[in-house]
Amino acid sequence: MRVKIALDAMGGDYAPDCTVKGAALAAQEVPDNTTIVLVGKKDLIQQKIQEFGITSSNIEIFNADEVIGMGEHPTKALSQKPTASIPVGFGLLKQGVVNALCSAGNTGAMHVGAMFTIKAIEGIIRPGIAGFVPKENGGFGVIIDVGANADCKPDVLYQFGEIGSLYAKHVFNIDNPKVGLMNLGEEEQKGTLLTQAAHQHLRLNKKINFVGNIEGRDLFNDKADVIVCDGFTGNVILKMAESFFDMLQTREIKDAYFDRFNYEAIGGSPILGVNGNVVIGHGVSSPMAIKNMVLLGQKMADSNVHLKIKEYFAE
Amino acid sequence: MRVKIALDAMGGDYAPDCTVKGAALAAQEVPDNTTIVLVGKKDLIQQKIQEFGITSSNIEIFNADEVIGMGEHPTKALSQKPTASIPVGFGLLKQGVVNALCSAGNTGAMHVGAMFTIKAIEGIIRPGIAGFVPKENGGFGVIIDVGANADCKPDVLYQFGEIGSLYAKHVFNIDNPKVGLMNLGEEEQKGTLLTQAAHQHLRLNKKINFVGNIEGRDLFNDKADVIVCDGFTGNVILKMAESFFDMLQTREIKDAYFDRFNYEAIGGSPILGVNGNVVIGHGVSSPMAIKNMVLLGQKMADSNVHLKIKEYFAE
Repeated sequence: MRVKIALDAMGGDYAPDCTVKGAALAAQEVPDNTTIVLVGKKDLIQQKIQEFGITSSNIEIFNADEVIGMGEHPTKALSQKPTASIPVGFGLLKQGVVNALCSAGNTGAMHVGAMFTIKAIEGIIRPGIAGFVPKENGGFGVIIDVGANADCKPDVLYQFGEIGSLYAKHVFNIDNPKVGLMNLGEEEQKGTLLTQAAHQHLRLNKKINFVGNIEGRDLFNDKADVIVCDGFTGNVILKMAESFFDMLQTREIKDAYFDRFNYEAIGGSPILGVNGNVVIGHGVSSPMAIKNMVLLGQKMADSNVHLKIKEYFAE
Repeated sequence: MRVKIALDAMGGDYAPDCTVKGAALAAQEVPDNTTIVLVGKKDLIQQKIQEFGITSSNIEIFNADEVIGMGEHPTKALSQKPTASIPVGFGLLKQGVVNALCSAGNTGAMHVGAMFTIKAIEGIIRPGIAGFVPKENGGFGVIIDVGANADCKPDVLYQFGEIGSLYAKHVFNIDNPKVGLMNLGEEEQKGTLLTQAAHQHLRLNKKINFVGNIEGRDLFNDKADVIVCDGFTGNVILKMAESFFDMLQTREIKDAYFDRFNYEAIGGSPILGVNGNVVIGHGVSSPMAIKNMVLLGQKMADSNVHLKIKEYFAE
């Protein structure tokens, strides 16, 4: 059976040029059984494919007449533009026509679209958005949440520990991933009321490998493969890491490790805890970033991570 | 009148060697009217002064028989060891014998000591601990709080905006400092319940120059001179910045700007909103770090920043 990865061809500041180019790059790297489905204005996409001389046989187009702009109000846009690329993409994902949906378009529309079409997995209080931090000793750590839920309850953080652990295990093939709780000290009594309570919940979970509290200095070391935090903290962390990369670029400091801070190398952030594989990309995504977002979607589709999460919460 | 800066000679992982050496370095840089008062075991300090061949005429010793260890419980240690260097130092500060107290010792004991001896300034709900972030275009931004108050109410963040603004103005001589609220988006409706409420409070404060929300990527740019956040967020930010510096060091990447991330260049974190100038240093403080902590204490004493804060809140 073919694996199909839908890419919102109209999403992102430089769409459809960058999305079409990115799809072509991804088409060269995906396994043979994989097709990339460009969702968007068919004529325009075809024109771009010709313009760029793309001849990949594993690229398809699925027409969507409208486009949700980057600045549009998510729920309003989704209800007023049912034939835009994002809702059309979610329709394909819900029907099982595609195995993943990737978009560098309107983040809010992607998040709301996921919640209202494929919906949260039963038993999950709040799906989260995951980010990735490059580890000094190789690989990436999973940080959840990075912005979907600014305010969290302890049981939401508890589930982020479980969801993140399943993601690290099935997508990154990390055996028994170490789950750490972001905090301001290592001792269990340290922290906010939220982290103190979440610590006690997580500590008692025998299904995951909870290693306790970690601190801001532990993001890039080996203490934890999964970093649990509320979406406010995760968002500050991720944007701060991005700014470090930008400052290194400004100074023309080249380093193999720091180069992995480049958002282009990561491609996107998955929404975890919903009934399907969804990846959100950066608005400024370059063809390289689009390519890596599509490859991330493909890895998630191949690992069936959303089904693994569903099975876990059905037990 | 002489300005006297008390330094806890017994505080820090490498005391008294590093503290005595640091005091000697600071003694060469402070203004002529300034004396550094080493608080701690007199005989031991005198022995170290001889050992290191220190002949500075602007160093004094004030005896304190006991030492509060780095791992001791703050309140317990303070009540059981009234003649330890930290409580003796606070005694000197409270009596006006010294104009500032600096210690790289037990952080909790410094914080509790400040709250119980010199106490919070009337009108201040919660004193905060400030940290410093090097700005790309020069100077340092003030971030408050970095760990004293993990959970904050909106009115506490509001006061941090005021206190941080007064510090940036009087100690860093920044005219009309820009005050930013750390958040996960620029729009005023973004954020947690806490930051949303704090934004509305800060927006209406005509005495400070509130510039709105800033994000994790804005820490090092010119958007804000003062960064307001809860102590949990500030702690994660500061430790993450430290780990970036450490990773650059590991890779032997030298850069004049990034070198300013070195905690040694900053020296310490002041407790703001209490009736006196108090600076807490890093436990691992080197002589260079101790020197800069003492110089920070001296700058605070010279600017009378605690009195400026007191005047502001008395209005």
